[in-house]
Amino acid sequence: MKSYIVQNENALFHECAFSCDNALFLKLNDEAFFITDARYTTEAKERVKNATVVEAKELLKAARAIIKKQGIKSLFYDPRTMSAQSFQFLSKSVKLLPAKNLSLKKREVKSEDEVKLLRQAVDEGARAFDRFCEFIKKDGIGKSEEELFFNAELIFKDRGRLGLSFSPIVAINENAAKPHALPSKKILKEGDLLLLDAGVTYERYHSDRTRTVEIGADFNFGKAQKFKDKTRQKVYDSVLLAQEAAIKKAKVGVKASDIDKAARDVIEKAGYGKYFIHSTGHGVGLDIHELPVISSKSSAVIQEGMVFTIEPGIYLPNEFGVRIEDMVGVIDGEIVVL
Amino acid sequence: MKSYIVQNENALFHECAFSCDNALFLKLNDEAFFITDARYTTEAKERVKNATVVEAKELLKAARAIIKKQGIKSLFYDPRTMSAQSFQFLSKSVKLLPAKNLSLKKREVKSEDEVKLLRQAVDEGARAFDRFCEFIKKDGIGKSEEELFFNAELIFKDRGRLGLSFSPIVAINENAAKPHALPSKKILKEGDLLLLDAGVTYERYHSDRTRTVEIGADFNFGKAQKFKDKTRQKVYDSVLLAQEAAIKKAKVGVKASDIDKAARDVIEKAGYGKYFIHSTGHGVGLDIHELPVISSKSSAVIQEGMVFTIEPGIYLPNEFGVRIEDMVGVIDGEIVVL
Repeated sequence: MKSYIVQNENALFHECAFSCDNALFLKLNDEAFFITDARYTTEAKERVKNATVVEAKELLKAARAIIKKQGIKSLFYDPRTMSAQSFQFLSKSVKLLPAKNLSLKKREVKSEDEVKLLRQAVDEGARAFDRFCEFIKKDGIGKSEEELFFNAELIFKDRGRLGLSFSPIVAINENAAKPHALPSKKILKEGDLLLLDAGVTYERYHSDRTRTVEIGADFNFGKAQKFKDKTRQKVYDSVLLAQEAAIKKAKVGVKASDIDKAARDVIEKAGYGKYFIHSTGHGVGLDIHELPVISSKSSAVIQEGMVFTIEPGIYLPNEFGVRIEDMVGVIDGEIVVL
Repeated sequence: MKSYIVQNENALFHECAFSCDNALFLKLNDEAFFITDARYTTEAKERVKNATVVEAKELLKAARAIIKKQGIKSLFYDPRTMSAQSFQFLSKSVKLLPAKNLSLKKREVKSEDEVKLLRQAVDEGARAFDRFCEFIKKDGIGKSEEELFFNAELIFKDRGRLGLSFSPIVAINENAAKPHALPSKKILKEGDLLLLDAGVTYERYHSDRTRTVEIGADFNFGKAQKFKDKTRQKVYDSVLLAQEAAIKKAKVGVKASDIDKAARDVIEKAGYGKYFIHSTGHGVGLDIHELPVISSKSSAVIQEGMVFTIEPGIYLPNEFGVRIEDMVGVIDGEIVVL
């Protein structure tokens, strides 16, 4: 792919170590251009690597002028991220060739430096889980999901030192049966099931982790969990076994769909197949959702340097839900839980 | 516009009182469909109004099937928000008709209920300004912009009861000369000029307000402000006069560009024309930036039910900046400062 255009912030950052909310990046054979407006050119000139910074009021018009000047006849673009309007404008001047997930594919295999940053993000995320555990033990009982959510945001940001990977999911009992529950006025009590799905960004790289626990005086966010209710315990154990089976299956050269199958088989065997309603995992990096997709339909094959989640779940509507999620990386040919 | 498609979250919410991050909404003559995946269908079925909830793994495929089944031949879409891929996929089965800012235009005039919610958001925002004033009087002197920013986020969220309209801008002296200043390590002292631009969301509706003040033992975030420095006072008075002139100009049937001109004329007459480097205002609703645009280039005409900001400013590089912003609404034919 000698010539292409990318527009979204993480794609820009990956190309040239800088991004802002109004810019585009053109790779035209051996040359590269970072086009932005007057508000950002000072910083762009200081920080952009391996590209010429161009200031323009209208980015697409400037891009079209450069494309013409360089005599470029065809250009790859991502049909998922380019707007219909931009496509219609540019395709008057250059043949646009679709390259689905253009930047995400370039970012599917992480560099050693990226794996290091992702490890640091995961470590920071795990410490934030511990801080949130302390908070709940001290102050959490009697608080609503909304208040727990608010405090989770604070605790995960650590006084502004870290960013949030996404809005944390803090869900009690039956609310945990909605995989993407919004916080409600429901109050946390001793003995409740609590699902926490949260992560942080460290130097723009994301962490992502889910734990499901029973709230008691000495609970923790480890994976060994005891539930008083037998159904809860059975469901929890099934999800944990499914996660272990998927992690065990993951190796260089294995199909992502077989990893998904490994998790799904365990859950189906336990009789909960129809309650595992999402895919087993997703890549993580500058975006929270990257490649590879770990699902039954995925055509990805696991390679050295990939980093992704393994997160099976069982959701019994109006009763409760369980999800267990960790990030794994393929490092020196081995699957490592980050 | 009998048949159209919208995809972004606030557009979805406006159509049917619910949204999530993977859904689309189809209005097909007298029928409406909310298409989402299994993660969201439980909540969608509880909350979606005036539309049939359809569960699908691939939203666009489901949309296409419904469009075919209903015999729809043409469909309006927003070329700014629809991706090239969605456009290419759908246009195989239906004629897509461009409607730029489709949802934003539908939302340009607010309903009475929406105006009520916006009023409540503005009231909540004003009370948050008062809480932040108390905080500064008690603890603010000696704190950095970064610390003030962190505390502003906390205070405006009010322990999670409210959302933030956007990241607050807390800028001291020369940093206030950058309209979109990021918080720095600069420390707040007595006698400093402080610019605070902040707002909250209440039931998803936004508030937006800016005040510029001189920090002293009994300062407040009112609009009557005294500055010891004469230039600061002259600039402040010019901005305040400009805001008053713009508010006075705003009436049903008046062009938005004439409101902008009313503010700009005052500032030009005071000799600061070239330091008023942005437009006079913008609509506010489910998004922080909506229609109408109040600028010299705007073709909007003020109508009953519009809600927008009036926010002139003067920015003297490396010295200081002043901006004063309020939200106004057109209610029973009158302009009301919310």
